[in-house]
Amino acid sequence: MRFSASYLKDYCRSLMTARGVDADCAETVADMLLDAELTGVATHGISRMGIYMERVERGLVSKHNACAITRESPGAVAIDAGNSLGAVGAKFAMDTCIRKARETGCCFATVKNSNHFGAAAYYTRMAARAGMIGFCCTNLTAKIAPHGAAEPFMGTDPISVAVPSAGDPVVLDMTPSVVALGKLILAQKLGRDIPLGWALDRDGRPTTDPAAGRAGSLIPIGGPKGSGLALMVEALSGVLSGAGTATHLHDLYEFDAPQGVGHFLGAIDVSCFLNADEFRAGMSNMAAEIKTLKKSEGVDEVLLPGERAARSAAKKTAEGVDVPEAVCAELNALGAPFGMSLHEG
Amino acid sequence: MRFSASYLKDYCRSLMTARGVDADCAETVADMLLDAELTGVATHGISRMGIYMERVERGLVSKHNACAITRESPGAVAIDAGNSLGAVGAKFAMDTCIRKARETGCCFATVKNSNHFGAAAYYTRMAARAGMIGFCCTNLTAKIAPHGAAEPFMGTDPISVAVPSAGDPVVLDMTPSVVALGKLILAQKLGRDIPLGWALDRDGRPTTDPAAGRAGSLIPIGGPKGSGLALMVEALSGVLSGAGTATHLHDLYEFDAPQGVGHFLGAIDVSCFLNADEFRAGMSNMAAEIKTLKKSEGVDEVLLPGERAARSAAKKTAEGVDVPEAVCAELNALGAPFGMSLHEG
Repeated sequence: MRFSASYLKDYCRSLMTARGVDADCAETVADMLLDAELTGVATHGISRMGIYMERVERGLVSKHNACAITRESPGAVAIDAGNSLGAVGAKFAMDTCIRKARETGCCFATVKNSNHFGAAAYYTRMAARAGMIGFCCTNLTAKIAPHGAAEPFMGTDPISVAVPSAGDPVVLDMTPSVVALGKLILAQKLGRDIPLGWALDRDGRPTTDPAAGRAGSLIPIGGPKGSGLALMVEALSGVLSGAGTATHLHDLYEFDAPQGVGHFLGAIDVSCFLNADEFRAGMSNMAAEIKTLKKSEGVDEVLLPGERAARSAAKKTAEGVDVPEAVCAELNALGAPFGMSLHEG
Repeated sequence: MRFSASYLKDYCRSLMTARGVDADCAETVADMLLDAELTGVATHGISRMGIYMERVERGLVSKHNACAITRESPGAVAIDAGNSLGAVGAKFAMDTCIRKARETGCCFATVKNSNHFGAAAYYTRMAARAGMIGFCCTNLTAKIAPHGAAEPFMGTDPISVAVPSAGDPVVLDMTPSVVALGKLILAQKLGRDIPLGWALDRDGRPTTDPAAGRAGSLIPIGGPKGSGLALMVEALSGVLSGAGTATHLHDLYEFDAPQGVGHFLGAIDVSCFLNADEFRAGMSNMAAEIKTLKKSEGVDEVLLPGERAARSAAKKTAEGVDVPEAVCAELNALGAPFGMSLHEG
């Protein structure tokens, strides 16, 4: 079924407020989820409403905006999210960084006692819209083995950087593993082997068996390089925030405890280095040079990071968002106790 | 031949001052080169003296510290290095970031009109020694093809992050390509094939021929991920600095023009987020947890980023630095006009 983004956002917001989530928190989470839908990251979109609401109802996530600044300098902020919904803490952090970076040139923030925040690019694009370079990463439960180890330690920790340009911003949003865990889950469902290079088994040996890979660990990109990047995310999001790492964190889909994850975000005001127009023109010129490079065989167009997402958002804003049956059913089930259901058109 | 690090540093500094390089610039470059020798990155060590001096003598690099701040905010500095030796501009930038980050919590700097600065980790370790998280990257002439392109655009742009810990800092220093260009050069010399996955030929096809790879481009780690990381380095070091990118830059080993490369560096004061002791203990605990993970088959020890470098530095500081014959010969040739030569012991 197809719905307008604004309709879906309103529906999700109402699902949350009906459950007692603060209006501002519901607005933030709904906006983030729909942004993911629009930009083509449906895995981080409205299909997460179910688990988010389940955690709220079990008392594992706060219904309130419980964010508090615990330490503050002109260009640095430490935030305790007080177990708020993940998007609430991360948005508060990026809003604060943008405001302070206007004064100082740059500001970074740590967030602890937080939860799953969706797609990291949502927060870095906030900075890009404000004429700033945005940076965001988060840690998650252990899935990637450090280079040389046979057990996971780092999460599939996303790293996002967004840079303003003359048109759409250039937005990188990547995990340091070769593939996401979802690809192993899918291969297992389909009874297919996975290529060597995606995962290690419990003994740290490369495996083509998705079940063995799920029981083992994901392989980082570039061996020690991706491993090192993921470790730096843990240092910034886990240690510097005070959130902790690996076994000290809890999974989104387990109900033993609040997740307790940490984030690290920042904004750098380009106008403190170069005139903003000059910077945007420079980015735009670089993009134009890249678009005119000779293409590899079978490639129609060289795409910059975030270009596919921007095109998806333009199309879906105009034409609506297609929602799979299973997700519709889940959203209707979540609405039923409050007499709510999705209506097409 | 084996020499003490301090002897080699004095010798290199004298080689530079004898050629008219300012004393403070000579000190900075010599210290950076010896740091690379000690930390086991001989490719960026004293073997670069020859090319550095050739560029100085050809008038392609300034003998002076010509760095000037062109724009300044409490947490942001734009620097025009005025074609100073690369280490001079990068060290000035990191010194400035550390000083300002003490006041604000964080500070970032761009550098333009600069040159080859050696190993990026030299600058990030400066921050770590000051109790800060250091960040450093630089752009270089085009060697890596953007994902989907058949021509290089991004350089083998190093990215370094250093984080203080209870013992040695954790220091990542990586290029976004699967291998450095040097591995292709070596394979070609030895008449060996290279593995698929290292390089593309001129038409953007994977190749096992090192010559075809050198004529083509290097492959980034993780496809679009490493490509995106390298592009972000170009945005920060090339566009935000005003230095330019790709064809606007010049190679260290060509004598047509100053290199004109740009850098991006920054320092984040951990004590603005967490008590410094608490942070160091957190890093140390994380390291201890990683060291005790089960190891992959054939792995004796899981090493953290920078651990090998720290051990190398301890050993070579105590026992001396072994210098290959060819490098000794070059250093002696550079000294001959001034009656200087290396003396063992």
